[in-house]
Formats: sequence, structure tokens, C-alpha cells
Amino acid sequence: MSEQQTLYRTHRAGELRKEHAGQTVVLTGWVQRRRDLGNLIFIDLRDRSGFAQVVFQPTEEAGSQALMAQGDKLRGEYVIAIEGVVAEREAGAVNAKIPTGEIEVKVSKVEILNAAKNTPFYIQDGIDVDENLRLKYRYLDLRRAEMQKIFLLRSKVTTYLRNFMDHNSFIEVETPILTKSTPEGARDYLVPSRVHPGEFYALPQSPQLFKQLLMVSGFERYYQIARCFRDEDLRADRQPEFTQLDIEQSFMSMDQFQEMVEEMMTGVFQATMNVEIPRPFPRITYREAMARYGSDKPDVRFGLELQDLTEQVRGSGFKVFNMAIENGGEVKCIVAPGCASYSRKQIDELEAFVKRYGAKGMAWIAVQEEGVKSPIAKFFSEEEMAAIIAQAGAQKGDLLLFAADSKKVVADSLGALRSKLGKELGLIDESSFKFIWVTEFPLLEHDEEANRYVAAHHPFTMPMEEDLHLLETDPANVRAKAYDLALNGFEIGGGSMRIFRREIQERMFQALGFSREEAWEQFGFLLEAFEYGTPPHGGIAFGLDRLIMIMAGRQSLRDTIAFPKTSSASDLMTQAPSPVVTEQLDTLHIALGGKALSGVEKQEAEETEAK
Amino acid sequence: MSEQQTLYRTHRAGELRKEHAGQTVVLTGWVQRRRDLGNLIFIDLRDRSGFAQVVFQPTEEAGSQALMAQGDKLRGEYVIAIEGVVAEREAGAVNAKIPTGEIEVKVSKVEILNAAKNTPFYIQDGIDVDENLRLKYRYLDLRRAEMQKIFLLRSKVTTYLRNFMDHNSFIEVETPILTKSTPEGARDYLVPSRVHPGEFYALPQSPQLFKQLLMVSGFERYYQIARCFRDEDLRADRQPEFTQLDIEQSFMSMDQFQEMVEEMMTGVFQATMNVEIPRPFPRITYREAMARYGSDKPDVRFGLELQDLTEQVRGSGFKVFNMAIENGGEVKCIVAPGCASYSRKQIDELEAFVKRYGAKGMAWIAVQEEGVKSPIAKFFSEEEMAAIIAQAGAQKGDLLLFAADSKKVVADSLGALRSKLGKELGLIDESSFKFIWVTEFPLLEHDEEANRYVAAHHPFTMPMEEDLHLLETDPANVRAKAYDLALNGFEIGGGSMRIFRREIQERMFQALGFSREEAWEQFGFLLEAFEYGTPPHGGIAFGLDRLIMIMAGRQSLRDTIAFPKTSSASDLMTQAPSPVVTEQLDTLHIALGGKALSGVEKQEAEETEAK
Repeated sequence: MSEQQTLYRTHRAGELRKEHAGQTVVLTGWVQRRRDLGNLIFIDLRDRSGFAQVVFQPTEEAGSQALMAQGDKLRGEYVIAIEGVVAEREAGAVNAKIPTGEIEVKVSKVEILNAAKNTPFYIQDGIDVDENLRLKYRYLDLRRAEMQKIFLLRSKVTTYLRNFMDHNSFIEVETPILTKSTPEGARDYLVPSRVHPGEFYALPQSPQLFKQLLMVSGFERYYQIARCFRDEDLRADRQPEFTQLDIEQSFMSMDQFQEMVEEMMTGVFQATMNVEIPRPFPRITYREAMARYGSDKPDVRFGLELQDLTEQVRGSGFKVFNMAIENGGEVKCIVAPGCASYSRKQIDELEAFVKRYGAKGMAWIAVQEEGVKSPIAKFFSEEEMAAIIAQAGAQKGDLLLFAADSKKVVADSLGALRSKLGKELGLIDESSFKFIWVTEFPLLEHDEEANRYVAAHHPFTMPMEEDLHLLETDPANVRAKAYDLALNGFEIGGGSMRIFRREIQERMFQALGFSREEAWEQFGFLLEAFEYGTPPHGGIAFGLDRLIMIMAGRQSLRDTIAFPKTSSASDLMTQAPSPVVTEQLDTLHIALGGKALSGVEKQEAEETEAK
Repeated sequence: MSEQQTLYRTHRAGELRKEHAGQTVVLTGWVQRRRDLGNLIFIDLRDRSGFAQVVFQPTEEAGSQALMAQGDKLRGEYVIAIEGVVAEREAGAVNAKIPTGEIEVKVSKVEILNAAKNTPFYIQDGIDVDENLRLKYRYLDLRRAEMQKIFLLRSKVTTYLRNFMDHNSFIEVETPILTKSTPEGARDYLVPSRVHPGEFYALPQSPQLFKQLLMVSGFERYYQIARCFRDEDLRADRQPEFTQLDIEQSFMSMDQFQEMVEEMMTGVFQATMNVEIPRPFPRITYREAMARYGSDKPDVRFGLELQDLTEQVRGSGFKVFNMAIENGGEVKCIVAPGCASYSRKQIDELEAFVKRYGAKGMAWIAVQEEGVKSPIAKFFSEEEMAAIIAQAGAQKGDLLLFAADSKKVVADSLGALRSKLGKELGLIDESSFKFIWVTEFPLLEHDEEANRYVAAHHPFTMPMEEDLHLLETDPANVRAKAYDLALNGFEIGGGSMRIFRREIQERMFQALGFSREEAWEQFGFLLEAFEYGTPPHGGIAFGLDRLIMIMAGRQSLRDTIAFPKTSSASDLMTQAPSPVVTEQLDTLHIALGGKALSGVEKQEAEETEAK
């Protein structure tokens, strides 16, 4: 190997073209591929920009033999610097498939900057490798072009978003990571204090309180690309730490603010992916979204809406339908186009699927050429059946799939079935991006376990003025000035106007079951702040990792985070978390304790890594 | 108060000028000041941009009385929206001192959006208020124009830095906050794991390892504005969490990289403060910096360099000097210009000052008009004395202040004395910004307590190639390929080229006293990564909080962080850290324990808050 680098890059490999022919260039990068043709050695030299072919070729000149000997040593992933002259390839050797396919570089000098062992997997796109291996060798996984592309996109997206914010007079302010634990919301990550024995910081689930206090401070327009933390059980679309674009503003109306967000979102798609998205985005109330799509983050790239047949079947001979209706539930169906010929086995599989969402069974009607086929046909007259089919908007060849249960189970099961069928029946244009605002969320949700109301968004969300009088008498029916932004069936942003007067915030805490003392102990500084001239304000937070995942067409958040954790919150590369020495714990005034997981449980946790 | 806002801002208060006269505008903001002139009410309405005078004035129109009644209710810090017509002030009422002093707004509508109690301190610049009170009501402290200015500057600086990085093909990649504890460096903040009992994450002291792994990944140019954490005892210029501009690059030479950094630094001063700084920045070796300035981050806004008199006084009759030299130390002085007439009391105070830095005493020579005055005159002949004065470069009227001790004590004490005198004698142009690179730092420092070498920067710093052979035989004399950037006497950036070959990294760990097993246990993933084609790389990290502090001319890092901690690492506003419920600890498999601080110690800790 060369003792020291003396050749420094003049060009990027992937950017060389015919017009560079004749120029002497220095390239630095990795050996992507090496072909030895006896007296010629071809190297694909890769850098972040792409790759170019470089050629070792014997000449009459002194040193040629040494150069060939160097070329002979090169192997995949060696790091090299070469100097050479760009030459047009002969006609037969042109490769039209690659951007640098018209040229090659005739090497005159080479420096081997580092050697490389065989990598545990190939550095190329579309490899079929266990994800745990990719995560252990994340630094190699990230070397692959398809991964680099995601992080280049991510960088472009954040740059666009920041510039947009700057141009709209939002200023970035950093808020603390070492902050205070609050009992609402998800589980906190805690950090023991060395200076204050027995006390803990918490890592923020969001900068919510700080950004509201910045509004009290008169910053008027704040944003931050902020790291947030939730110690929850993980799934493919959750990570213990995640990044959000966090925005808060004073004095704008809800409409003005949503319009600005739409401009930002269409702008980022235009600027980074050259995708045009029409504005304004459609808006739908929570109630309507649940009714039509069975989801509060509907994927509106396709139809397949839920059809309400409650009135049609009320009082029919079919007990299952009647029971559901009598219990305050409803009867709805999805019309699966062209599926009337589904086999019994196919239908059984769909039934098994909806049962996972709480459905007890699934009635169906197949509108076949030769007539209606259905296990529930006997409960309905021909006219009734025809009316059901007409009401559902079904055509010949369609299959009606029913849910009859509580509103929640009907929405959950048919909502999930809709997504599944949308994909399986090819109803979704995978290249399209469809935004929709969901508004008028319930302010509160009843937590059956705790037997109290909890905040549907968070305790600082402003109730709709027209529902405010219901806060004490009918809390379940108070709607919030909240607006979520959904994209292709994912919630990518959640926002609301905030409470900015103390008496309303105190009523809210009361509705959540806080005593006055508890409210002041936890949030006294906020309640007090409201008394010193707090402006009307509101904001939103976007899940940046998820947005990038959708934009990049990936299935896992892990592909959008450079060094992600597994589903058991481990970093397989650095082996975090890890044991620490007892002195460290002593210094922090803590000891190991509590109920330890058994060996079996621990093993199970490890086996679910990366799932 | 108005039930709901219906007036939305059309203009910012601070931007109104004569050319807006005649326009109907809506302003929103805070009541900065209210003057009631009987039938006229003047309000200074403040928003982020500044303020404008708005006038309530009775008219013939219906509703005028109600409007005046509203105006009558307004008090300081009330939040209001007003609609009105911009009018030029009468000649006598023009206030040339304020940007909006030529206009006022005649109010036709007002909405009181929120009331305000009397604030615990005035919302104005230059208030003399206990810092703890400011920190408790941080949201009010930040409302003051001088504080807002700092955060607007900070936002501009980060925007500039990001754009510079983007234009130079650096891409931002986020690295984890939940990471692995490593024994080197400062104390880690730990985060107990719920899923892995007895295991802990650590908050990163810097993204060092991750950014190096991104170089292994072939990202080539990375940056991040990254939050970092150190659980150390705090001073005015330290915070438990701080922000750095973190940069790493592959394939550039050290010179190329430093040049780019200079372009960035001069650019940010030009763009945000309109200050021109000449390039290239001066460079000085560590050895020379210590010799001439007694500091590895010299303030080069003024001279007052240390003068080496060791050779001049060697073998003189003065025992104190001789002893110092015989013990391997040195004799140096500072020439304080025009201080020959200092009183004994003044000189005693300077002696007391240098004793804090380890000096045992301080000899001095006053070169007065009437001759030399000095307690050590008797030890030197007249010729010797004249030679000393000449060698020191002193003139009539100057005072020579000596240190004779080990090199370290001489540097520490005269370095500190130099800074003190520089300030007190008015030698410093406070409006100037002087950068200097300090290079060729020692790679290792001997830790007397642990009786082993520790890394002067960090264990990943590359030794200078010409010193590499000394790593095992003479580690104290190995210099590092490190470069710190100092500005006005502060270290604002620390960088180095990194080790990128496994065998050198292993030798480095060995020099630090790690066994092979320990090195692999802690840093195995890095050592392994070096074997898969790691490019030559290097980088730097800038303390952003400190840079902003210097740019904004502040004395405390706390003024540059929106929600800072006190010197006992508390947030006086939210009361973090705080106790948590036992169930939270159980879930995390930890218990309170370890040696608790006594009541007295705790009280002491609290009393040092914000000092």
C-alpha cells in the first residue's frame, strides 16, 4: 500500500463524459469490479457519483511494469487513487447503459490507499441478504448505490424544507434533549442525574411544550428538524428515536397555515422528485374518513369505499346483522370488483384476515353472471337482495364482503380489508402521491383500562369553539381543532391549534382527570406562562423518516435512518445498549434492580430482532 | 377578551414606513407601552420585527366609544390585533431614533387576544435581574429584543453553514442519540434499556465513530449540526448538551480541507455580520503557541507575547531562577507596556493572580524614567539587567513580570496573565475577530492519576507520519495530524486527520494501555470496518454555541441556547431533572442506590445554580 496519499481527486468518476477526452484526471474511490484480460486490467472505479472504467495497459515507458504489478494487486473494495488520461472508447466497447459508457481512463499512476477483505455481502443493489447481517455491517450496506440514493434524497428533502421555512420567516431554534418526564403519552426514556440524586431527565417525545413556550416568547414562527424519542414496542414503522419537522406559528389562521403546509409539501415533491401534486389538498372530517374508508389516514389513491347498508338490512331475517344493529353497531360492505368468481378458499382467507381485526365472521354476496350466490341469500327476498346490491353500487362480476359489528370493529376490519384488496387487485397507482387532510378529530378518547379520558392528540390541543361547552358534560363529543395530513395511507403529519388561555387549559386537564394540584405540579410553568400574554398559536409535526420512506418507495423506516435500531431497540453494529461498569451506576445513584426478564424472554426478544 | 381571532396580520409592525401611509393594515403583537393622554391612547405594538405606534382616538363614528373602552383596558404585554390606517406623524411627533418613527397607525378595530399579568421583570434590553429569575421565566427573557437578536443571528449562521456545506457536496446525515457507552473521554449520560435488562445506552459525546463509519460507507462528505452531551461539572462556558457543526470528508488533503474551512468561516462572518476577515488564517504549531502565548488557543488580537529569558538569566545569582532552570523549567516574562509606575499593591494583586495558576511567586522589573526598580536587581549586574530588558524588548515605562517554573506552570500563569492584562490595558480591539490555526498537537498526554497515556484529542487521531515510529518508544513526542481553530482566545473547532488502517489503530489503542481484547470489545466494529476498504479521511467539529457567543459578543453560553441548564445542570423553568414514579424505574430494571449526596452537599449544589 502507498504510505501516503499524494494524488487528489480532480473529477468525480460518475461525471466523466466524452467531452473530457484528452484531459488528465485524478479519480479516487473503490474498486467495484476488476477484469483481468491478461495484458489489460479493467477496473470499475466507484465513488459517490457513480463509476468509470479505468484501464491498466502496458507501455514502452519506464515504470510500466511496476504499474501493471500494482494493478494486479487490486481486488474488490480496495481504495485507490489513479491518475490517467480520459479516452473515448472504441465504438464496439461503448456501453450505452451507463452514463460514463463512452469513455475510459488510461491509468498512468496508481496509489493503493487501503486494501479490503472480501465483504460479507456484495456491494450492489437488490441483494437478498438477512437484514441482521446488513445491520451488523451497516457501513457496508450503506455503500450500496440504492442506499446512498435514499440518503441523498433525504438530504435534498431536508434542505428544501429548511429553505422553505427560512423563506417564510420561520427561524430554527433548538430545544433540549435532556428534559422533564411527563406522565402523558408514550413511555419516556429516562436519564439519571449525577448531580441530583434520585432525579431523572427524560428524552423528549416531541418539543411540544418548548415550541409553545417559544410562541409565548414572541418568536412567532419556529421550526426545527428535531430528534424525538419513544420507548415503545417497535414495529417496522417505528424506531426508538425518530426525526420530525416540527413547526409552530402564532397569529395565522388554521386555513392560512394549512395552505402554507400544502405549498411546502407540493414544493418538496416538485423540487426533489419532479412530481406535480395538485392543490388544494382534499379535506375530510374524521367522521367521514372513518365512515368511507374505515381509517383516519385513508389511502385515497383508490376507491373501494365502505358502503353503509345498515338501513337496507335493518329488520331483515339475518340475525347476525340485526344483533349488530341493535347493539348500536352497523352493517357495511366493500365491493370487490371482478371477484365474484372467488373460490370458497379465497373467501375463507379473507374472512380469516378480517377476524384479526375483531370481526367475528364475514358474510358475502357474489354477483355472478348466472345470478347471486351467497350464504345469506336465504335471509333476503330477491327484491331485498337487489336493493342491497344496488345500494352498494355493485355490478355483475363483483363480490360484496360484509362486516356487521360495532362501528370500531366494522371500520377496523373493512378498513384493513380495503387496503389489502386495493393492493392485491392492483387498484393502486404506486407512482402516485395522494395527500388528504383529516380534520375535526375527537378531542378525547376513553381509555377503558384506566377508565378515564385521554387526549386523542395531546393535552394542548384546542377544542373547536362550538364544542367547548360540552367539555364537562359530553367530553366524548368534543371535536378538536386538529388536522392530520395523510399520504398514501400513512399519517405523515399531525397538527392542531393550541389552547392559549389558562382557564381552557385547566378545564382540559380536569377533563383528563388531573386534579388542580397534579396539573400545576406537572405543567405549572405552562399554565403560568399563559398568563403573561400568550398569542393564539398552532403547529404541526411531520414524521420525516416516514415521509422519506414513502418518497423513496421503501417498506421499512430502517432504510431511511443511517444507523437504525432493530425491533428490540438494539444497534447490531455497535452492540448498544450494553452493560456498563458498576462505578458508572454508583456515580448516577442507581443500581440494577427491578424484575429481570427470564432467559427465555430475553432469547425471544433477541429472536425478534429486526422483524 | 375576544372570543376568537378574526383579524389577521397584513404587515409587520417594525417594517411600516412613510410609504405605507394611507394603507389599511392589520398588526398583531404585544403591548410594549401604553400612554393615556386623556382623549388619546398611544400603544407601542411590538412583534418580532420591532414595533409601531398605534393610536386610539375618539371619532364621530358609531362604535368609537366602544373602541376607546377597549383601548382603555390594554396593559403591558397584552396580546392584540388591530386594524387601522397608517398615517404620517406630524412634524413635531416624528421620532428619528426608531425605524417606524415617521408613522403611526390610527386604530379602527381592536381584538384583545389575551391578557397579561405584570411580568416579573421588564421586557426590555439591559435589565439588571438575577439570572435565576430570567431562567425560571425563560419564555419572558426570550421576549426581550436583545435575546431575540441572538437567536435570529444563530438561525442565520446555521442557515449559512448548511448552504455552504450543501454547495460543497457535503450531505447531512443524522447519527444516533441512543448509542454505546465508551470509556474514553468525558463522563457519559446513560439511558437504561427496558428491553435489555441491565444494559444502557449512552448519549453521544460526539458523532465521531458514526461519522468515520459514514466515510467507510463511501458518503465521502458528511456534515451534521449535531447535539452532543457531556456529564461534566459545568462552567459558564459549558453545558450538558451542546451543538456542534460536525464535518467529515474523505480523499481531501489536510491543506485542502483547512482552506475550505477558512472559506466557510470568513463567509459566515461576511454574510451574517458584514465583517471581512482576511485569508489565509495564520497557522502556528502547538509548541510555538505555548511558547509565545502560553496557550493552545491564543488570542492574537493583541501582542504582549511571552519573552523567553532562560538563556539570559542562566547561572545568575538569583536562586529562584536557577532552580527553575536546573529542574528543566524556564524563565519567561511579559512586558506590560506603561505599567512601570504600578504600585506595590497593584503588583501584589497580579502576583496573587498568577499563583492561582501554580506560580509560587512573581519577580518583576519596572523600567522607570529614573532607572530600574526591582526586588531582584541585586542579583544582576547593571549590564545583565540591561541585557534582560533589551532581550525582553522593554521600553522605558514598561513593567516586566516574570515566571520561573516548569514549562507548564510558566505557560499557564503567564498565559492567564497575558489575557488579563490584554483586557485591562485596553490592548484588545473588541470589534475584531482573529482566527488562528494551531497544529502539530501532541498525540498523547500523560495522565498522572491513571499513570498512562490518554489521547490528547481522541484515540482516532492520526499521528504525523514522520513521528509514527516513536509511538512505542517515545509516545510523548509523537505529534498528531490535528488542527484546532481558535478565535479571539477560544477554541471554536477541533479537527484532525484520522487513522484509517487497522494496524495503526491497534498500535494507538496499545499506546493508550488497552489490551488487544479490550480494544476489540470496545471498538471491534471500527477495527473490523477498517478492513473493508476505508478511505483516508479527516474532519472537524465546531462548537456552535460558543461561535454564536463570540459573534454576538456575549459572555455566557447560556445566552446562546434557548432553554439552557444551570451550572448544576438544572432547567429552572421545567424543573428538570425531577423524581419519577417507582413503576418507571421497575420497568427499566433499575433502583435508586449508590452514595446519595448529603443534604449539605445538595444545598451547595443548588446554591451554585447559574453561577
